[in-house]
Amino acid sequence: MAKELKDLTKRSENYSQWYNELVVKADLAEQSAVRGCMVIKPYGYAIWEKMQQQLDKMFKETGHVNAYFPLLIPKSFLSKEADHVEGFAKECAVVTHYRLKNDPEGRGVVVDPDARLEEELIIRPTSETIIWNTYRNWIKSYRDLPILCNQWANVFRWEMRTRMFLRTAEFLWQEGHTAHATKEEAMEEAVRMLNVYADFAERYMAVPVVKGVKSANERFAGALETYTIEAMMQDGKALQSGTSHFLGQNFAKAFDVKFINKNNELEYVWATSWGVSTRLMGALIMTHSDDNGLVLPPHLAPIQVVIVPIYKSMDQLDEISRRVAPIVEKFRNMGVSVKYDNADNKRPGFKFADYELKGVPVRLALGARDLENGTIEVMRRDTLEKETMPIEGIEERVQQLLEEMQTNIYKKALALRESKTTTADSYDEFKEKIEQGGFILAHWDGTTETEERVKEETKATIRCIPLDGDKTPGKCMVTGRPSAQRVIFARNY
Amino acid sequence: MAKELKDLTKRSENYSQWYNELVVKADLAEQSAVRGCMVIKPYGYAIWEKMQQQLDKMFKETGHVNAYFPLLIPKSFLSKEADHVEGFAKECAVVTHYRLKNDPEGRGVVVDPDARLEEELIIRPTSETIIWNTYRNWIKSYRDLPILCNQWANVFRWEMRTRMFLRTAEFLWQEGHTAHATKEEAMEEAVRMLNVYADFAERYMAVPVVKGVKSANERFAGALETYTIEAMMQDGKALQSGTSHFLGQNFAKAFDVKFINKNNELEYVWATSWGVSTRLMGALIMTHSDDNGLVLPPHLAPIQVVIVPIYKSMDQLDEISRRVAPIVEKFRNMGVSVKYDNADNKRPGFKFADYELKGVPVRLALGARDLENGTIEVMRRDTLEKETMPIEGIEERVQQLLEEMQTNIYKKALALRESKTTTADSYDEFKEKIEQGGFILAHWDGTTETEERVKEETKATIRCIPLDGDKTPGKCMVTGRPSAQRVIFARNY
Repeated sequence: MAKELKDLTKRSENYSQWYNELVVKADLAEQSAVRGCMVIKPYGYAIWEKMQQQLDKMFKETGHVNAYFPLLIPKSFLSKEADHVEGFAKECAVVTHYRLKNDPEGRGVVVDPDARLEEELIIRPTSETIIWNTYRNWIKSYRDLPILCNQWANVFRWEMRTRMFLRTAEFLWQEGHTAHATKEEAMEEAVRMLNVYADFAERYMAVPVVKGVKSANERFAGALETYTIEAMMQDGKALQSGTSHFLGQNFAKAFDVKFINKNNELEYVWATSWGVSTRLMGALIMTHSDDNGLVLPPHLAPIQVVIVPIYKSMDQLDEISRRVAPIVEKFRNMGVSVKYDNADNKRPGFKFADYELKGVPVRLALGARDLENGTIEVMRRDTLEKETMPIEGIEERVQQLLEEMQTNIYKKALALRESKTTTADSYDEFKEKIEQGGFILAHWDGTTETEERVKEETKATIRCIPLDGDKTPGKCMVTGRPSAQRVIFARNY
Repeated sequence: MAKELKDLTKRSENYSQWYNELVVKADLAEQSAVRGCMVIKPYGYAIWEKMQQQLDKMFKETGHVNAYFPLLIPKSFLSKEADHVEGFAKECAVVTHYRLKNDPEGRGVVVDPDARLEEELIIRPTSETIIWNTYRNWIKSYRDLPILCNQWANVFRWEMRTRMFLRTAEFLWQEGHTAHATKEEAMEEAVRMLNVYADFAERYMAVPVVKGVKSANERFAGALETYTIEAMMQDGKALQSGTSHFLGQNFAKAFDVKFINKNNELEYVWATSWGVSTRLMGALIMTHSDDNGLVLPPHLAPIQVVIVPIYKSMDQLDEISRRVAPIVEKFRNMGVSVKYDNADNKRPGFKFADYELKGVPVRLALGARDLENGTIEVMRRDTLEKETMPIEGIEERVQQLLEEMQTNIYKKALALRESKTTTADSYDEFKEKIEQGGFILAHWDGTTETEERVKEETKATIRCIPLDGDKTPGKCMVTGRPSAQRVIFARNY
């Protein structure tokens, strides 16, 4: 296995292969027996759990509650919102029967043809339809609003080309679905949740993101406006990392959800929905990791500090273990997640390589000489720098180091993004620059036609119209028609 | 709505209807548009979340980690373990197609006949098969063991008769799946998790349970031994509340999972699985609640204390709010979940009834006269007793009261169970007593034949062979043949 660890493809050789290998070698996930579905392994799931806990806390702090809606959706529901069906109906898992029976010819079990459903059921690709069908009974008056529900769930989209975490048939996510009495309030909510996502990405994942609005072409099926956070991976490609939708009254109209407003008039309810998924795991991995394996932000690392004893005899190990015990206890009391790896069947070198591969932020190594000298070796995963420090007070120094690393990897990712963000003023310039990857800020005339032409000719799409960007108007790089502001073009995952 | 609250059917009139109404009126859950599937509403989900958090903590403390396996299982997997397919294949949701298309006749969307799967996929009714198919690649040597994985997931069983929380087509649960090098270790694990479940039920849910072993007839499909915790509802019926299975080498053999043991021999791996589900919500509701609504154990109540101001003017409300603010803060610092309900559009009487219905353990009411007198009114939900107390130090007294209530409702449930637990020494006596409900301890000859005869003639089944019960041997009440110990018979949910 130690050899395997070294076999990781380098990013410069084949970025895509590096990613696929890393996901498997770092024990994050693996392909399952079901096409396009992955198994999320304990180490990968532990990272996802930390993400969930933090996000859930942020949702609750902004007034949201959790609920749970059915996995299966009647087929007819999907057709009720015209754009939605176009976007989602095509790639669904369809349940048609409710029973199996023993094969009359004795070969296992077969579908019982007598158990055909009258109406087929679809495994939810997203839950707007079933939720708005439910909200109809919850909402009578403005006093019942707002409804601020979130759901943690699995969803299913029959994707043809899948990649672990980035695009899988089944994935885990949260989907917020809110109902409001006014358009303004719904729009505010959509922006609020965009900000929550951006805040989470930057402060916890250490992933810098651009907040923006999607072009009509890239909008969620059924939304009037889709907000997005876009991150840049190390290869310069964009990864859409979270979206928040202002749905207007589309779903309220499709499911006849009306309320009596303060003026005693009957009105359709205003809606938002917003979600992030296990795709964030892909963003996390691809933003920070290197040719030695994962690099995890300390705020989300399941193990923040590992302590490895270096010993030649069991007596030495005992002595080291005695010295380590109070350090472990102190870390725990400080809320630092620590592991003391005294496993006797693996050599220190193997352990070092394994924890590097798994992205444990800080590795402490303690040997007999350290005990004599009152020192300990500290290795930080982001820079791979090693330093020997006094063992006294090591806990506080490591805690400080974890925060420093959290900031450092964010800054490194931001610097990379800035170095790969350029402008293009002509379509020729654009075509040349897009081959280098990265974000290109360019003027666009606002039409789907132009956007699709660029996509066809260069494989780049408009990732977003930045909210905080330069608002200087100009001329479309393709058509020369007026443009309100530069937008971000990039190739993307 | 205040009127609706009072319309709750009494338990003595119709226990079953009381339960169904309570689930809806207390805002716990409701039927969805999909047959047999419920919507878990925010208040119900908040209780489930508290259960999850505590259980998850207990699983982690016993060395388990979480992971996630696919929702869909290839049909052929189900057939690989002979008993398992008999138990689970019959009632499955079957995915046969992966695409919809626009109806050529323009009526919405239809299943695309060209998108038929080569092999049908089943929505997991439980995950032993897909997990053991995965474990095959994880386990080579005894050094890879034990594997102690748990999964929080939704599962689907096509039930014909459904009741919210107690039996629904889709339900939420956790399923632990462990792999061990020895039979002894696996058996210990199965018992360990039974004890975790019993501990959780008694200390958090305040639901007394009997720990026992299932008869062959009631065993999990594929298990060699099924351990269970059985609770008694107020109507004297049993509710199976959690099970832990020793699976032997059945799934290892079905999926060819072998390992090199310490003696360098190739051996099949030993397995357990164990689960509890949203069914626990049913147990919680039916054990403690009364004709006024829910009674929640303080350890699982989303809101433990509600404070209601009684005022005649906004000035009075302001004065009360100022007095309440530090109380709320102190409760929060003590880790007590508190809500100050100063909503101006509902009268105190309505609020009182609503919080009673929702089972909030302690209600504090504070009026102008209380401010003058330095008092506060305290109502405890379990006994509905009201008492006026000094406001000074109220936080500590309430915290103590919460613990007292937790103990009290447990004792009350235990007393009920004891009063409804009897013995029967002849089948005639049994037939008479079973009509009164409750647990009947009787001797049984250990055969499936006798068990099925009793079930057919009296609708009672063997709930379990108690682990901690009286081990005195005797004679089967039906056949007179030897019996090792009394077992528990009851009618059940």
